[in-house]
Amino acid sequence: MNQALREVEAQVEPSDGSERVRLRFLPDGAEVRVPSGTPVFDAASWNGIAIDSTCGGYGTCKKCKVRVVSGDVPVGPIDPRAFSPSELDDGWRLACRAAARGDLVVEVPPLQTRPKAALAGVGRHVILRPSVQKRHLVLDEPTLEDQRPDIDRVLDAIDDLEPTASLDVLRTLGGTLRKSGFDVTAVVVDEELVDVEPGDTTARRYAIAYDLGTTTVVATLLDLDSGQPLAVRSMLNRQQPFGADVITRVSATMMEPEALGKLRERAHETFAELTAEVCADAGVEPREVYEITVCGNQTMMQLALGIDPEPLSMAPFIVSSNSFPETRAADFGVAVHPRAHAFVFPSLGAYVGGDIVAGMLATGMTRDQRLRLFIDVGTNSEIALGSSERVLATAAPAGPAFEAAQIRCGMRASDGAIEGVKIDGDEIRLQVIGDVAPVGMCGSGLVDVVSELVHSGLLDHSGRFLDPDVAAETHPVLAERFATIGKERIFILERRGKNPEDCVFISQRDVRELQFAKASIATGWHILLRDLGFEEGDVQQVLLAGSFGAYLTPLSAVRIGLVPKLALPRIVTAGNVAGEGAKIAALSARERAEADAILREVEYVELSGRSDFNDLFIDQLAFPG
Amino acid sequence: MNQALREVEAQVEPSDGSERVRLRFLPDGAEVRVPSGTPVFDAASWNGIAIDSTCGGYGTCKKCKVRVVSGDVPVGPIDPRAFSPSELDDGWRLACRAAARGDLVVEVPPLQTRPKAALAGVGRHVILRPSVQKRHLVLDEPTLEDQRPDIDRVLDAIDDLEPTASLDVLRTLGGTLRKSGFDVTAVVVDEELVDVEPGDTTARRYAIAYDLGTTTVVATLLDLDSGQPLAVRSMLNRQQPFGADVITRVSATMMEPEALGKLRERAHETFAELTAEVCADAGVEPREVYEITVCGNQTMMQLALGIDPEPLSMAPFIVSSNSFPETRAADFGVAVHPRAHAFVFPSLGAYVGGDIVAGMLATGMTRDQRLRLFIDVGTNSEIALGSSERVLATAAPAGPAFEAAQIRCGMRASDGAIEGVKIDGDEIRLQVIGDVAPVGMCGSGLVDVVSELVHSGLLDHSGRFLDPDVAAETHPVLAERFATIGKERIFILERRGKNPEDCVFISQRDVRELQFAKASIATGWHILLRDLGFEEGDVQQVLLAGSFGAYLTPLSAVRIGLVPKLALPRIVTAGNVAGEGAKIAALSARERAEADAILREVEYVELSGRSDFNDLFIDQLAFPG
Repeated sequence: MNQALREVEAQVEPSDGSERVRLRFLPDGAEVRVPSGTPVFDAASWNGIAIDSTCGGYGTCKKCKVRVVSGDVPVGPIDPRAFSPSELDDGWRLACRAAARGDLVVEVPPLQTRPKAALAGVGRHVILRPSVQKRHLVLDEPTLEDQRPDIDRVLDAIDDLEPTASLDVLRTLGGTLRKSGFDVTAVVVDEELVDVEPGDTTARRYAIAYDLGTTTVVATLLDLDSGQPLAVRSMLNRQQPFGADVITRVSATMMEPEALGKLRERAHETFAELTAEVCADAGVEPREVYEITVCGNQTMMQLALGIDPEPLSMAPFIVSSNSFPETRAADFGVAVHPRAHAFVFPSLGAYVGGDIVAGMLATGMTRDQRLRLFIDVGTNSEIALGSSERVLATAAPAGPAFEAAQIRCGMRASDGAIEGVKIDGDEIRLQVIGDVAPVGMCGSGLVDVVSELVHSGLLDHSGRFLDPDVAAETHPVLAERFATIGKERIFILERRGKNPEDCVFISQRDVRELQFAKASIATGWHILLRDLGFEEGDVQQVLLAGSFGAYLTPLSAVRIGLVPKLALPRIVTAGNVAGEGAKIAALSARERAEADAILREVEYVELSGRSDFNDLFIDQLAFPG
Repeated sequence: MNQALREVEAQVEPSDGSERVRLRFLPDGAEVRVPSGTPVFDAASWNGIAIDSTCGGYGTCKKCKVRVVSGDVPVGPIDPRAFSPSELDDGWRLACRAAARGDLVVEVPPLQTRPKAALAGVGRHVILRPSVQKRHLVLDEPTLEDQRPDIDRVLDAIDDLEPTASLDVLRTLGGTLRKSGFDVTAVVVDEELVDVEPGDTTARRYAIAYDLGTTTVVATLLDLDSGQPLAVRSMLNRQQPFGADVITRVSATMMEPEALGKLRERAHETFAELTAEVCADAGVEPREVYEITVCGNQTMMQLALGIDPEPLSMAPFIVSSNSFPETRAADFGVAVHPRAHAFVFPSLGAYVGGDIVAGMLATGMTRDQRLRLFIDVGTNSEIALGSSERVLATAAPAGPAFEAAQIRCGMRASDGAIEGVKIDGDEIRLQVIGDVAPVGMCGSGLVDVVSELVHSGLLDHSGRFLDPDVAAETHPVLAERFATIGKERIFILERRGKNPEDCVFISQRDVRELQFAKASIATGWHILLRDLGFEEGDVQQVLLAGSFGAYLTPLSAVRIGLVPKLALPRIVTAGNVAGEGAKIAALSARERAEADAILREVEYVELSGRSDFNDLFIDQLAFPG
């Protein structure tokens, strides 16, 4: 947690996230509800209401002047430096230091400068307030009458920020000032002066946002001046040889003492390679990148930072920390500016990690007034349900069915994989990746085929294939696709020879795998609904996140009972929201502060200990059709 | 500057150090004057008044309860967590968060626990409040019902401190907790959790205080539980081959690009060797040393930390920074606990460095009500004058005479050096180091012989040897010691042969060297006296600091006019006060905070630019006798 937040926290009573206050902003009248203690500046920023500020909300530029028209905000320690006594009496306060602890009406003066903004996340309009700031300084040279230390000369000239300097900056500062004729650019990240560069370099400041997936890692290089992405690259996580999923990688660290170090190194190599690529693509010098942001699940983060992951992997599933300590890009093996900071998304628990917090940030889960259900479908499926009133989150161990592992004809979503299935009368139409002959099916294909089989009546609601004799009567053509391998019944999607084993098919056991997986997820959101006191029909929007979610057909998701039964336009595939969250964090320090707010506000629900889990799970095994 | 200080500063208006407030502590009625904005806790601590506290004043233990009986201290943000509304109305406040911005009367409740204290500095009774703290914790093991992150489990159990944890601690925390059965000791330095050790290690916590001199480096290993020094070692600074004084070492860095790195390495080697020695002497494992404190002049500090010293060495003499950023022992090449902190004394300017700030801390310069003059005699002589009302400091370029360099028979204070001289009638008695035949004289011998010659009348007040004819008449025996080498007159102290060149003597030019040196220093304190509005006779105590000061005879110092003409008991040789200051800083975080207060309060006076310097200097050339 950064300095500013710590100070704000020191000033407000710790909140358990449950108490909310209502703010109305004048002149436009926008109303927002935020947890008690939230600074007025953040409450506005999170809701797209811009207030003047050049320091980004650290209490140093004293530009974020607002007037509290109704409600009580005590005069803070810095307010008297910004306002006269009569202004204070009139309710003027610095918005970044004014903690909202009751309902308020706040007047926001017209902006002096139009803030830049960028579109990011799920249609979010993000006001550009990057942590990385530059100030061009033309300084007076020292004299016997003005013997200020070199560092004071630099810091005194920055009137809206009050950074501290690290030892490394001091090491070269004297030389830089004198060689440049005291014409320099100060580079400030968060509250640290990370460099003093000769001349005017203000036009060039960059950040890289990383989405550290178990399978794939994505890097996006951002121009912090325009908010635009300049280059994007992705590659397979180089930890793959240690196992495809988090559990096998954690197991590796438990078997071999060297493995943790090796896994960390592999993650760093992945980052390093992506970094070199995006910098080259964008024509940016690595040392012009002053910050990185990283999201990932908790296991990936602990492995990348070299933190023993063993306690994550077995009950009671303990993380080392929800929020990571201050880290630098170098801690991730990222060779950009040597003192570049790293912002790491905090996690809610062992199985609701920083990727999900980033996703919640990108989708505005905790700020939207609608009741929304967020599902990131995967081996470990993360589920969040709520609105700006209250959000609950949990993790459901869905198993690998959605990744089509342990499915007889399952395969990765690559060329030859059936990704979509449509049963139209007696005909079966297959959508195959790469438009080639099908060789297997991926997760979305599996969901589709089950959904279509249930819909056509070939699979009953309990998940059992129709009795062969009955099928022959009701579906004379399609029934010919039933066969057996050993004692197990299968349904053939694509004949590739006489032998059933050579065909692309779905087996009774495959259906069971999917049934267990979707029941696990559905049980998760049913429990959250129950805890929040809502019914399935109250959900106003379902967000399907993650790469698997992007391929899932909303209709099939409803038919198999993976998501609540809603009008299909209410079921939205939201894409890689984690990566979007990482970008938003780079573009705005205030949005980033919301990630910490999410950590405090969102309540984690542990399913393992629930007495109602088994009952609900059995209910959810059936396919609603 | 640490977190706590920054927070305190954020709450108070910045003070230029000139405005003072008066505090009276009940029941004993002790009165102190401190700069406006000083926390009540510090004001008490600096004056030996103990207030309960286990966190050491960070606002976390909430034990430092006091009642403001008279004067106004607003309710701070943390006070409501410690007191009921009626207690707040009665004036109860947390002393560490109560900034004194006007005169106050404060009631201090009886202590719950008797604080340990140690004697250090110039007879100072230091209440033990080291930055290094340990807490033995026996933790509940995690369950599905209690899935707190490992780090939260540790931090929640420490009720009086609120440290942050670094990444390194997280890396091994999970394993340590589980291998030790959740029975551990938390090690906190300042506000950082630097380690979690298996079992109960609370009895063992150590620090090392270093005095980094240009010539000699001293290390003292301290037991932070008892406050006692367990081992002391000193050795020559390994930078010596690069030059005996700061100027030649800085010049080396300007000639050769590699020299700065080499000088840094030599400093680190010196530290490393001393560290190994004191740890071995005391039977302490290096990793049980959790903090180091370092004082030294600004050039030595910049070289040790690898900060370009060039701007220090030429007008207008610019330091990189007065306060150093947060550093670790590793930044000094000190291989103790890998995350051990380093406290570095801040400096007032290029030539009034951290060693002098440490000396002022050890002598209580800014807290004593008497008008006192502090002089650290050397090539660069630092001078401070003042009382708890106001302190001025300056640096006088005395040249190397006091180190007996550029003196014909000068030598270091080692075996064979005349260190004391007494003229008793016709006889001259020499005090020689090592009780051997004299081969030269060191600085204190030089001062003594000049003082005695002036007193006996053989040297007149203008610094000229008595005319040979007159001398033969008035001092028939001693006059035989006059001789000439070339055209220069000399006075022989010890005959070692027929040839004057073979004798140990003082030459007319040597007298001139000393005259210039002492005039420089005397001009310095005369200017400070003038600026403060005092006369020579108002000075109530003179503190002669540093290794040279320790050997100087007060009588001689008065006779040559180096110090004001005071009754001799008022002239105190204070010894290595810089080293004492470093020890005090290790024993008490509150005293250490005073070092920062000294930086704000003590006003630096630059002599180079003074129009009255030359007139005063000429006045001071004479010997008062």
